[in-house]
Amino acid sequence: MKLVVLGAAGRMGRTLVKVIAETEGAALHAAVEREGSLALGQDAGLLAGAGHAGVAITHDLEAAMAGADGVVDFTAPALSLAVARMAAERGLVHVIGTTGFAPQDDAAFAQAAEGARIVKSGNMSLGVNLLAVLVEQAARALGPDAFDVEVLEMHHRHKVDAPSGTALLLGQAAAAGRGVDLAAASVRVRDGHTGARQAGSIGFATLRGGSVVGEHEVILAGEGERIELSHRAEDRSIFARGAVKAALWAKGCAPGLYSMRDVLGL
Amino acid sequence: MKLVVLGAAGRMGRTLVKVIAETEGAALHAAVEREGSLALGQDAGLLAGAGHAGVAITHDLEAAMAGADGVVDFTAPALSLAVARMAAERGLVHVIGTTGFAPQDDAAFAQAAEGARIVKSGNMSLGVNLLAVLVEQAARALGPDAFDVEVLEMHHRHKVDAPSGTALLLGQAAAAGRGVDLAAASVRVRDGHTGARQAGSIGFATLRGGSVVGEHEVILAGEGERIELSHRAEDRSIFARGAVKAALWAKGCAPGLYSMRDVLGL
Amino acid sequence: MKLVVLGAAGRMGRTLVKVIAETEGAALHAAVEREGSLALGQDAGLLAGAGHAGVAITHDLEAAMAGADGVVDFTAPALSLAVARMAAERGLVHVIGTTGFAPQDDAAFAQAAEGARIVKSGNMSLGVNLLAVLVEQAARALGPDAFDVEVLEMHHRHKVDAPSGTALLLGQAAAAGRGVDLAAASVRVRDGHTGARQAGSIGFATLRGGSVVGEHEVILAGEGERIELSHRAEDRSIFARGAVKAALWAKGCAPGLYSMRDVLGL
Amino acid sequence: MKLVVLGAAGRMGRTLVKVIAETEGAALHAAVEREGSLALGQDAGLLAGAGHAGVAITHDLEAAMAGADGVVDFTAPALSLAVARMAAERGLVHVIGTTGFAPQDDAAFAQAAEGARIVKSGNMSLGVNLLAVLVEQAARALGPDAFDVEVLEMHHRHKVDAPSGTALLLGQAAAAGRGVDLAAASVRVRDGHTGARQAGSIGFATLRGGSVVGEHEVILAGEGERIELSHRAEDRSIFARGAVKAALWAKGCAPGLYSMRDVLGL
Repeated sequence: MKLVVLGAAGRMGRTLVKVIAETEGAALHAAVEREGSLALGQDAGLLAGAGHAGVAITHDLEAAMAGADGVVDFTAPALSLAVARMAAERGLVHVIGTTGFAPQDDAAFAQAAEGARIVKSGNMSLGVNLLAVLVEQAARALGPDAFDVEVLEMHHRHKVDAPSGTALLLGQAAAAGRGVDLAAASVRVRDGHTGARQAGSIGFATLRGGSVVGEHEVILAGEGERIELSHRAEDRSIFARGAVKAALWAKGCAPGLYSMRDVLGL
Repeated sequence: MKLVVLGAAGRMGRTLVKVIAETEGAALHAAVEREGSLALGQDAGLLAGAGHAGVAITHDLEAAMAGADGVVDFTAPALSLAVARMAAERGLVHVIGTTGFAPQDDAAFAQAAEGARIVKSGNMSLGVNLLAVLVEQAARALGPDAFDVEVLEMHHRHKVDAPSGTALLLGQAAAAGRGVDLAAASVRVRDGHTGARQAGSIGFATLRGGSVVGEHEVILAGEGERIELSHRAEDRSIFARGAVKAALWAKGCAPGLYSMRDVLGL
Repeated sequence: MKLVVLGAAGRMGRTLVKVIAETEGAALHAAVEREGSLALGQDAGLLAGAGHAGVAITHDLEAAMAGADGVVDFTAPALSLAVARMAAERGLVHVIGTTGFAPQDDAAFAQAAEGARIVKSGNMSLGVNLLAVLVEQAARALGPDAFDVEVLEMHHRHKVDAPSGTALLLGQAAAAGRGVDLAAASVRVRDGHTGARQAGSIGFATLRGGSVVGEHEVILAGEGERIELSHRAEDRSIFARGAVKAALWAKGCAPGLYSMRDVLGL
Repeated sequence: MKLVVLGAAGRMGRTLVKVIAETEGAALHAAVEREGSLALGQDAGLLAGAGHAGVAITHDLEAAMAGADGVVDFTAPALSLAVARMAAERGLVHVIGTTGFAPQDDAAFAQAAEGARIVKSGNMSLGVNLLAVLVEQAARALGPDAFDVEVLEMHHRHKVDAPSGTALLLGQAAAAGRGVDLAAASVRVRDGHTGARQAGSIGFATLRGGSVVGEHEVILAGEGERIELSHRAEDRSIFARGAVKAALWAKGCAPGLYSMRDVLGL
């Protein structure tokens, strides 16, 4: 599958180039950067530390997409919207890891998905997406009278907010499984005299330290037993891996708008 | 729901009596022991440390089942088979935690299930049954080329076999998710020069020590990320809790043969 | 070693009676309850579910201590102070798990320790006391520039305060290892925009749910590696076990005031 | 502190160059490779991905050591022995992460340590060395009658032997704490009918999968409680970090032969 990488000189773009080089069935077709980038003309593979790729970085998006099977895109909303329309005209796969879209962008993607095979997700990790599905099921099966849900996360010392977006995504999955509103059920901090735990609440706890890439655990604790569902990220390449896997998966699909749950077959 | 407990003076029977006393919607209807038991005539609640129940332990199974809604049964294959037939005649719920049935007993249970609501499982814990479902899904979604499955368990120092039955059950769930044969895929020990891990294999590791009731973890380890799905049992009452929950659930069902997965709605 | 159990009809007292019955080298010499207790005259072993002990519960403390080697005491400050003086006169072992003493009580115990062998601790668990020692060493060896300290705890849903006393004790151990003041270094909650982690701080995180007896973990997270030191309590008998072990250990010691660290040989 | 890196073009050498560049108080003085290496003459910093260092890789060891404060050396036994003698003549620090020495090499290092400050260890990670010290203490404090020791490790799918060297090192630490012989106490595999756990034994369990750099856990499991002491390596740079920290520490020491325990102040 011939893939175009957007933002090919950035951190995620270089990781994508590397993962494509390592993935059977995937090949780098073109590598795009914005006009004026110092990386234009350089070999995308060398820049990524993946060996010579024979693909010079270009700013010509039209040319890059000619002959391609798909585009992998962790860029910015305006560019991703434009690329989705181009992918629709050409019937391409478009994998979108970009975040920060406005609610009204949904309609544009729905329209593009009439021609393109779009896979779009705020978190491209296979593991995190699977975990969210499992958490939703577990929270549904083990109801709030008997089982308490807690979400724990740990990240490196440089992270400036808490809880992490992924912790909230997992809390959201638990809330969906329970049919409750996360904001209303959340207990975000505990300190001092808290009183007993309220049935049905979803608790969060946050650890920070060292160079931890990202660890998340959802605990369902009942009388005499506990289920613990966790994800450990070892490096940030997992988002690139998930995106490339999504591209390969979408190649065989009808035009449409897909999520990582679809890629996982769940 | 009026429940009959079989083997009411045994360890599991007494735990069942206690859990029924604590469970809203469940009431102890009768408590049965074998003829000759020293416990006959004693109050089942007092014997269980659950306070006076007003139910004397009897050996008259027929009388015990008269007026009951269901029977909870962790006994022996021959008795469970007989009770299933009696439950069928009376349209009762029959929850069976007994183990050691012969393959040919399946037909007898299928026939009894035309009249009775039977829930039958080798492990009555809600958490373990849920975990098995999640493991099967995860193993299917995260295929053998990218993710390695390992099963870890820890039990107290008195356990005489390894891996535990539950570890094998979880390995079986992973194998089912992958569509492979567990026996062929299993790696049960590693020591000395093992060579690199074989893709698609399912590894087991066993810890023993102290008074650990039972902990199980299934790890799916890929490039750069790991999913860990685990269950911790704090005490043995979880099997009784699962059985009573199964009884309450089955009351509202049509006659049939159910598993704990059905009880969990999965 | 002939031991007197105070508060023998209470929850901890009954656990002590049970543990003494199970411990080689320890024997129940007398069991004491306050005047007016309904348990007076009952067999302490039967009451504890430990079989007939041949020891009737008494309120006569003097008589109880006659011929004894030691007293195990999880009661109240006033009684423990009085018993320490009695133990001093008789040269006995006195194990004190009572909490809530006033600072000025220290002098009274120091005086009693001229005659008695006193082991006194706010937490009688061997494991927790050991963990505190290890945490102090680890925090000293892995300094604040390179390693961040986090303390995580989980308890059952009924616990009404956070963090647990044991979590604070472990944080205190880390602070001692670093030579800092815990109150000044503590970060007790994280929510929203927190900014990057401050070097040298000691973070706390709290989980609540189910029937968890008590789990504590201290994490030292550096660049590229983490140390995790944790304790899991399975049941509350560990405090009684630690106290009985302390009594057996103290029998061979000179009069003095000892801590659980001394019992552990650390 | 001016440091010479040996094997500067190899994987560990490049990591050392990078870590030195990031460490306050450390500076790259020279970078050495064997004669004939293709890297000779290249800038050691650029080669390591650490930016221009202004240090060309050389094969002239004598010249490299002139004016240096210390040498960091993960090479081969013969070279390390020769360098130790050179360090002794010059009164330098010599940090040795090389493995595979013969027993008779001990005498040569003892002699060199009359002039040089040598820090030598089979595992340069601060965390693993600290963990070994903690395990030894814990195993001593929590004796074999009451607490069972288990060692668990997980590594990536490419590892070809089991248990890991570090797992054995931790088992050795536990055995030392207990005053027993590891080989005699070890239980390396469990499968099928094992019988109950033998008191005093030290069990090993091995997990393999994904890209796990290295995780080790020592469990001390008693009646009703467990201590778990673990180390997680996130990347292989921790060995280089430990070596550079050892060099900085040794600068202030008298000539002698030191271990990582000395560096940790334990």
